[in-house]
Amino acid sequence: MSTENTVTAGKTPVTVIGLGNMGSALAATLLENGHPTTVWNRSAAKAKPLVDRGARLAATPEEAVAASPLILVCVLDHDALHTVLDPVAESLAGSLAESLAGSLAGSLAGSLAGKALVNVTSGSPEQADEAAAWAAPLGLGYLDGAIMTTPPGVGNPEMMFLYSGSAEVFEEHRAALAVLGDPLYLGREPGRASLYDVALLGLMWSTFTGWLHGTALVGADATKAADFTPVAIRWMTHAVAGFLATYAPQVDAGHYPGDDATVDVQIATVGHLIHAAADRGIDNALPELLKATMERASAAGHGSDSYASVIEVLRGQRQDDGTRV
Amino acid sequence: MSTENTVTAGKTPVTVIGLGNMGSALAATLLENGHPTTVWNRSAAKAKPLVDRGARLAATPEEAVAASPLILVCVLDHDALHTVLDPVAESLAGSLAESLAGSLAGSLAGSLAGKALVNVTSGSPEQADEAAAWAAPLGLGYLDGAIMTTPPGVGNPEMMFLYSGSAEVFEEHRAALAVLGDPLYLGREPGRASLYDVALLGLMWSTFTGWLHGTALVGADATKAADFTPVAIRWMTHAVAGFLATYAPQVDAGHYPGDDATVDVQIATVGHLIHAAADRGIDNALPELLKATMERASAAGHGSDSYASVIEVLRGQRQDDGTRV
Repeated sequence: MSTENTVTAGKTPVTVIGLGNMGSALAATLLENGHPTTVWNRSAAKAKPLVDRGARLAATPEEAVAASPLILVCVLDHDALHTVLDPVAESLAGSLAESLAGSLAGSLAGSLAGKALVNVTSGSPEQADEAAAWAAPLGLGYLDGAIMTTPPGVGNPEMMFLYSGSAEVFEEHRAALAVLGDPLYLGREPGRASLYDVALLGLMWSTFTGWLHGTALVGADATKAADFTPVAIRWMTHAVAGFLATYAPQVDAGHYPGDDATVDVQIATVGHLIHAAADRGIDNALPELLKATMERASAAGHGSDSYASVIEVLRGQRQDDGTRV
Repeated sequence: MSTENTVTAGKTPVTVIGLGNMGSALAATLLENGHPTTVWNRSAAKAKPLVDRGARLAATPEEAVAASPLILVCVLDHDALHTVLDPVAESLAGSLAESLAGSLAGSLAGSLAGKALVNVTSGSPEQADEAAAWAAPLGLGYLDGAIMTTPPGVGNPEMMFLYSGSAEVFEEHRAALAVLGDPLYLGREPGRASLYDVALLGLMWSTFTGWLHGTALVGADATKAADFTPVAIRWMTHAVAGFLATYAPQVDAGHYPGDDATVDVQIATVGHLIHAAADRGIDNALPELLKATMERASAAGHGSDSYASVIEVLRGQRQDDGTRV
């Protein structure tokens, strides 16, 4: 028994469609972990480094789909997904028609039925819902995914891969998905992974911009980003993360005890930030917006509540009680 | 030898002036750690729980200052600090005049000279500079401090206490300061702790608001804050913190390689967030501002750079090269 056989024994064959930076990282990680890996890309040249590492290059999307029970799709967008997979579905329809006509030559090689499609293409929750609705009549198990890292982070078990849609696909292929990163299943609504994705990216951009504003502020007084940032990271990962953990149940309860720091106290404090930044010529659009948002919360009666109450002015309308506990 | 003597042996006597929630937490933590602790507050009633636990109540600010080599001041604001301490300084001036007149009865009980003042009153960097300038001619060592936690976090060694000003005061009293939280010394500029303070609070509010926006977004599709938030915290503490660590040296170098995610790619993605949130009736002022800021960075030539390049449009003017590398 060769080493290669030992490594690949029992590992699910996987097809990766779409070999941009992310798709290539997914395929490379699957190969490194001993999964028989078939790849396809519109431009075959992208497949070369993966083929050199043992991937099989499919000549067509149909062949790529036929090769594995688990198909990862990582293409540019939702339209590209349909451009690649619609002809495969049509080919299947053709094969079925031939079968119904009694022709056993009707190849099922391009069949999607019984396979699992894991779609990690970026898109909206609505596009995920639409893709799941497209997959259902084909007998194709559909799991939508959001990769919460950049290509170099693929394969790092600390990085989160969010999935929603078919629980059966998730359970059946959990082991293969786990080689890519830590797989988190968010439930059957196909759009939920995408919704988490944009929500988490929004948190990221907010954090980035707040950090850059602070970095510009201390930088104006000759502090290097490399000196400020470890303090900022420690502040985020200990204190700020702790506040979020405290505030989350407040949000669910719709009750925001302001014991440790009220909205009104923070409105006063944000004034110090704006003043210090203005003195140093720093753009204050972000803290001005934060202050205005806190002031709206205070005007809505949350001045003595915690910062978590600000969610009340961000939501257009309160959800059904059932969603708030 | 009593237990109490064992505990307090060698521990620096400390005076705490100002017994709001934070000042009381500081005094209580010093007492718990065996420091002989003297307290003073404008309204003496606030001192009762501390006196019950072994604190000595000073009758006047002069007596409070006389009691200990290390004086922590935690009052409402800079004005309150002067209201309390200016008369002590004047009393000292009077004592000196009496001494100069040959009167040995001139009490030095109220003397500030040779003592260490650690001012953890919230204020601006400029107020810290002013307080340091006020202390210098009195022979009073001045250290400014910013407490990066709420009163319940005092005494937790994971919480940061930022200090700037006299290095001698910091070194001499490091052990006493360390019982309050992890003391970080930021250098001799008295205002630096306050500047870090507002910069870190700005990061906190940005993070809070981004998290609340995301929580409102997933909440609109029936996800509880308590389900979303652990994922958000993990995202912040692993992935986002990792980006900050990568971006900090880019900021210092003024060079922002956009390998993993360019500003232009993120402008496209923030559109998904805005669209999903608008569909759900969520206030989009924050993501709209983030998008506009990214677009300004792109227009300034940073479209192919990393998000760190956004700092270029937040800064009014580039700093001297000496402060950037």
